[in-house]
Order: sequence, then C-alpha cells, then structure tokens
Amino acid sequence: VIARLPCPAVSNAVGIGLLGVGTVGSAIAAQLHERAAAIGLRTGVTPRVVAAAVRDVSKPRPTLPSGVRVVDDPMAVVRDRDVRVVVELMGGIEPARSAILSALAAGKPVVTGNKELIAAHGPELFAAADAAGVDLLFEAAVAGGIPIIRPLRESLAGERIEAVMGIVNGTTNFILTKMTEDAADYGTVLAEAQSLGYAEADPTADVGGHDAASKAAILASIAFGVHVPVAEVTREGIESISAQNVADAKRLGFVIKLLAIAERTDERVAVRVHPSMVPITHPLASVRGAFNAVFVEGADVGQLMFYGRGAGGGPTASAVLGDVIDASVNLTKGTHAALGAFAPAALTPLSECSSAFCLAIEVNDRPGVLAAVAKVFGDHGVSIRSMEQEGMADAARIVFVTHRAKEAAVRVCLDDLGRLDAVRSIASVIRVVGVQ
Amino acid sequence: VIARLPCPAVSNAVGIGLLGVGTVGSAIAAQLHERAAAIGLRTGVTPRVVAAAVRDVSKPRPTLPSGVRVVDDPMAVVRDRDVRVVVELMGGIEPARSAILSALAAGKPVVTGNKELIAAHGPELFAAADAAGVDLLFEAAVAGGIPIIRPLRESLAGERIEAVMGIVNGTTNFILTKMTEDAADYGTVLAEAQSLGYAEADPTADVGGHDAASKAAILASIAFGVHVPVAEVTREGIESISAQNVADAKRLGFVIKLLAIAERTDERVAVRVHPSMVPITHPLASVRGAFNAVFVEGADVGQLMFYGRGAGGGPTASAVLGDVIDASVNLTKGTHAALGAFAPAALTPLSECSSAFCLAIEVNDRPGVLAAVAKVFGDHGVSIRSMEQEGMADAARIVFVTHRAKEAAVRVCLDDLGRLDAVRSIASVIRVVGVQ
Repeated sequence: VIARLPCPAVSNAVGIGLLGVGTVGSAIAAQLHERAAAIGLRTGVTPRVVAAAVRDVSKPRPTLPSGVRVVDDPMAVVRDRDVRVVVELMGGIEPARSAILSALAAGKPVVTGNKELIAAHGPELFAAADAAGVDLLFEAAVAGGIPIIRPLRESLAGERIEAVMGIVNGTTNFILTKMTEDAADYGTVLAEAQSLGYAEADPTADVGGHDAASKAAILASIAFGVHVPVAEVTREGIESISAQNVADAKRLGFVIKLLAIAERTDERVAVRVHPSMVPITHPLASVRGAFNAVFVEGADVGQLMFYGRGAGGGPTASAVLGDVIDASVNLTKGTHAALGAFAPAALTPLSECSSAFCLAIEVNDRPGVLAAVAKVFGDHGVSIRSMEQEGMADAARIVFVTHRAKEAAVRVCLDDLGRLDAVRSIASVIRVVGVQ
Repeated sequence: VIARLPCPAVSNAVGIGLLGVGTVGSAIAAQLHERAAAIGLRTGVTPRVVAAAVRDVSKPRPTLPSGVRVVDDPMAVVRDRDVRVVVELMGGIEPARSAILSALAAGKPVVTGNKELIAAHGPELFAAADAAGVDLLFEAAVAGGIPIIRPLRESLAGERIEAVMGIVNGTTNFILTKMTEDAADYGTVLAEAQSLGYAEADPTADVGGHDAASKAAILASIAFGVHVPVAEVTREGIESISAQNVADAKRLGFVIKLLAIAERTDERVAVRVHPSMVPITHPLASVRGAFNAVFVEGADVGQLMFYGRGAGGGPTASAVLGDVIDASVNLTKGTHAALGAFAPAALTPLSECSSAFCLAIEVNDRPGVLAAVAKVFGDHGVSIRSMEQEGMADAARIVFVTHRAKEAAVRVCLDDLGRLDAVRSIASVIRVVGVQ
C-alpha cells in the first residue's frame, strides 16, 4: 500500500494495533490508509493499522484495509510484534485497563479516548506510562474532537491557570439549548432528545452530570497537575431545571448551561459540575446544541475558549488520530510527552467555594415579607445584586441574584429563609458563573 | 534562586537568552523565575533567563531577575555558552533574521513571535531549523495568546483541513464591533480607536489588512503544509466599510468581520483577507472587540474554534512561554518538533474562488429596472438568494445576496450592471462567508 504512494524518504512506518473496531476504529484505519502520504510528508511517520481485536471475528470488516490481522483477544494485539502503538477503543474499565497496563509494560505507547477509565484509574495508568517511558495520550477523553488536553499540557505549561469551565456533555447542552430556544420544559425536551438518539433510554449518566464529572476530574488533573478522584467531584445534574428557571435566566440576561468547573481557590482546587447561569455575553453562552467548549482563564493569557464537536465518530476519530501520530512520532524519536508529576489534590470543599447565586423563593404576599427576607441575607453577609417580585394569586415569587458569596453562607441563608413563616418554599437555587 | 525552591530532582535548568526586553521579555523572565518550581514539577525542565540583549544597557532593568547578563549586542546573547534557547522579541526583519539564523546554525532552538519575519522568510528559517535539527517555534506570531499553531501542527496532524478562517487583527475587530454596536461610521470609530491606543496614528497595517495577510500566510502554511508568499495573499481592508454596509448586514442577519481565510479548493489553496459578512449564528460572529478567534473546518472533526486575546503583553508572553518550555523540554530530550515538509503552494487565483456576495447598487427608480438587473445575474449563472429594494428620492437602492458563485462570474455581472443605463453605481461588494 505504502509503496504506491509518493512517500518521502524520511517516513517511518509504525504498526498500530486497535482494540475495538467500531465507527472510530474503522475511521482511524481508513484515514491512516488514505492519508498515509500526507501524514508522512507532514510528520515523517506513517502509522498504519496492522492488527485489530474485535468481539466477533466472523463478522466481515469491509472498512478495514486488507492485510489487517483481526483477532478476538485484545492481549494478542498488545503482544503482536508488529504492533508498536496500541489504540484502546473498547470503553469501560476491564479488560481495557489490563490491556493498557500490559501495553505500557511492554514499552508500547497507548492512545485511548476512555474518559471513564482515565478518570477512575488515571494515577495508576500515568505512573505505568511514566515508569515505562512511553506515551499515554487521551485527547479524545474530553470534549471529543476539540484539542484541549494537548494545549493545556503543552501550550499552557507555563501559564498559571485560574479556572477551566467546560460545556463537556452534548446531551445536556442539547436539552438546555432546546429548553431555552423553544421555551419547552425538561421532560418534553428529554423525550425529544431520546427519540433523536441524543439521549440514552436511561439518561442518568448525562443528565445527572456523571459524564461531565469524569471530564471535570480529567480537566482538573491536567490544568492543575493534581489527582482528582471522580467521586470527590461535587455533582448536580440538570433534572430539576424548570422552564421557569430558564425563563428567569433569560429575562435577567443569562442562559443556563451545565458546566464542569475546576478552579484555583487560594492554593487548593475546587472541582464541580452543576447547572450554571452564564451571562449571554459570555463566550460559553453561544455554545449551542450538541457542541462542546472549554473556557480557560489564565493569569497571563486571560480568557481562552476551545470550541467544537464533543462527540460523534468523526470528531473522536480526529482526536485519536492526532494522538496516534504524536505517539508514533515520539516513538520514532525515542521520546515521549511529559505527563507531569501529579500531586495529590488538596480539594476545596463545596462549602468554601464561592459564586453568585440566583434564588427563587415563594412567599405569602403580605407587607413586610421582603424586609424580613432581605434581613436574612444581610445577617449572613450575602449581598443582593438584583431582586424581582412577581405576584401569583395570594402569593408572590421573588427572584434574587446575589453578589459572589460562600456556599456555606448561602446555605445558612436558605435554612433561615425556610424558617420564616412568610416563606412557602425555596423554589430553586442556581449558581451564577462568569460575573464579578 | 532555584536552590531556594522545592525543585524536583528531575528538573533540568535550561539557560534562555532574550533578544529584546520589553513588556513581553520582562514578563517571560519574571514568570520563569516565579514559576520555576511549578514548571519543573510539570515538565521536568526549569528554563531561566541568563542573558538579554537590549538597546540601552545603561537603563535600569528592575523587572529582570538578578544575575541576568545584559548586553547591547544580540549576537553576544546568541553566542553566549550558557544560552541554550534563544527568544527573539525584537520584531522587524533585521537584525532578527540574522540572529535567528545564527542561533539555529549553532544548534540553538529559537522561539519568536515575529509574524512579519515568519511570513516573509519562513521557508529560509524553517529550512535552517530543519537542517540544524532544532526547534523554531512561533505560537505568538498568530492570534497572540491563543494556542493555534501547535494544535494545527500536532493535534490536527492527521486531519484533512478544509478551511481556516480567523479574526486575527484586534484593531479591525474593535472598529467593526464598535461600528456594529454603536451604529457609528468608520471614521469616527477609527479616531476613537486611535485615541484609546487600539489603533496606530498610521493605521494602514491594520485597517488595510496587511497584518492579517501575514497571519493568513502563516496559518495557510501550517494548515496545508505549503509556502505562501505574503505578497500573494489577496488582500482587502476595512477602509471602505460604511455604516450603511453594517446596517444592511445587521438587517439581513449578519455581522461584518475582517477574516483571514485559507481554504482548500480542489487540490489548491486559496488565501485571502477581506471584510466578510458572517451569519450572526456563526461562532465567529460573537467574537467582539479586541478578541481574536480562529475557526477551523476539518473533514472529520467538523467545526472547531479557538478564541482568546490576540495581542497584549500577557497573552503574547503566555504563548512565548509555552514555546520556551516546549523547546527546553525537546532540547533536554535531544528531539525537536517536526515542522513538516513544505511544498510550494499551488494557490488558487481569486477569480476562481467562490463565495456568496452581498451587492448594493443604486438605480434610477423606474419600471423594469429590477428585471434588467436580475437578467444580468441570470445571464452569468449567478443565483440570487435574497433581494431588498429601498426607495431614495428619485432613485432606489437594491441589496442582493447571491448564492455561492465564482469571483470571476460576479465580476462580469458587476461590469455588465455598470453598463446598464438605469444603474447609477455599484455601492458596495462584500463577500458572505459561513453560508452554504
């Protein structure tokens, strides 16, 4: 195959082994085949797929170039002498973890897009890659096709990063965008997303923020050089976001987005996922539908945003392909990318995080209520930025936006508000992000 | 200095030489000093400034860490034995070019943000770096602090890039944003930009698109692996954009942006800079004021956008710092980034480029004019997407938006329109980008 193409003399063929041949694996194999000449010219290496592990070897694989050895045992691919770089596309924890550890132990660089595995077993895998002196690359694990891991790790290696905020889950962004643009309620839009295939039958991993929490842990670890166990990521999903919340936000000049946030607070790191009101003028506000974006704030560079498709075969294949080429180039040169030393994270507990808040409460509409409510905020040092009151039959709905305040102080306010006779209920509490 | 910091054992000190110590040079020196421990922990190297060339050695340099040798001869810094990486921040062609060539010839990697030099002498400099087997990095040359060169070169090394479109000049974006948001005319806003320091007293390099053309040439060369002489970049500035054009665009659902565009047309590359109408829903439309953004369209990855500050000391220093660390890491490992082989570009002449167009013409308001005008478009196969007619005294103004058409066909239409008795003038011709 390669002999027919006008390859430059410098081009080194590098055998690639695929663990898993779905949409992404097929795309990788096809692209390495079709673009061999261009890639060789540009990078000096010509990676090509030589072996692949699949679940069912009897199934025809018309998308794989001829000559690829197809087996059913991932370990056979890892052990294959012609395989010099292993690409893990099986997903899940096992056997992916064991296969990756074996590859690394054998001195073979690994490329994976397995966010669940990286979030859960990052420290073990990074240590194995470091010990073996080979690459472990995972650009596809966060925000699909958007180059974000490499820019954070390399371009911003000298930057003091203050915060990373990402729209990293396309399903929830699709739902929130639809709720905003069609003034529709959560249940209706979720059902539509499910019928369109944008949401799973059991949507918990997406709408509950679990997927975003894995990505938040990975982003935090890369941006701040710390290990963040995914179980320690504060997590709140979008299930309780109502059409009323979306309308309130819109009226006040905000949109609601599910954000994965990792930020420096003094010398600790706060990592959380929650629905957030973002000013409509903020770059993240215009990220619509299934698109993803990662917003980075650095001491010197100021605001950066990386935008693109967070899921799908093409974008994921693009990210994996970039890593495959990088790993192949490094292998040929006898080098590897520095993962950096990861310190155990000193994580900021949620109670010590601060942000602005949008609070909606329902009260009995009688004189003096507002004063009583305002006094509670004042007593706990939570300063009010704006307030709107709306009558409803014999009751009223008050929507407050606070200035930046500690979570703990706001929680105490809410407890005290709940104890006021005039307060019927705390209708909603949504954090406001991207304001001073 | 380093001894006082808790540096890990793996950290390798790398001596850096600065050519030029302005805002950026001072920031680099300070950041490498202050963040030595963090950078060492993260990357395994500790670059630190050991020598600097300045114009006036008698001037005190309180921003430079103590121990930095300050001289007035750039070549003395290049030759300094302790200098292992050279950072060129002088700007202009000479003596920057000679100093860089000397450094490369001596096997010293070079970092520069000099877009003028890279655009004018890229092939010579790339060849010198390649021959010496060392890095020549220039992230700061395009879009300031936004990581774009490294993502294009590495993350997207396997992607088939179809187009790169950038808002890469902050001055013109500031002016066009103000014209849009304040409905102000070009002259007024230019004067304001000049008084605020956003535009030079002689604004030609910015408003005439010269600066953007240099960046377009660099982006094209990285995205498509071709040499693009800056003189061959089609260039049109924003000087003739009127408040009327901005108002027309707004009414039709567009904003006007000065775009640097490099796109694949068959197997050639078209590189141009011109004012462009962009749909308000396009990610580039929300890039306001002095911000920059580079939009990339790839065959697999789809749409990507990289957004951030394109100028200023902090963002530029951030980009240079990332390159300094990368060059230091590579040097320590005895490797360097592949620049790729650059083929001479087969550039698409403007006449063969295609886009949609927004044309405004002034006609005598009498029966049959519209039919005559429409016939001209039809005769040359240019299809009309929308048309608006507005009366003015005894004349009318017609604003057409065409479907995608070849430049040559539109030029012939305009010639023929000019020959119609009823047509008083072609008031404006603006390309429309980001539509099908």
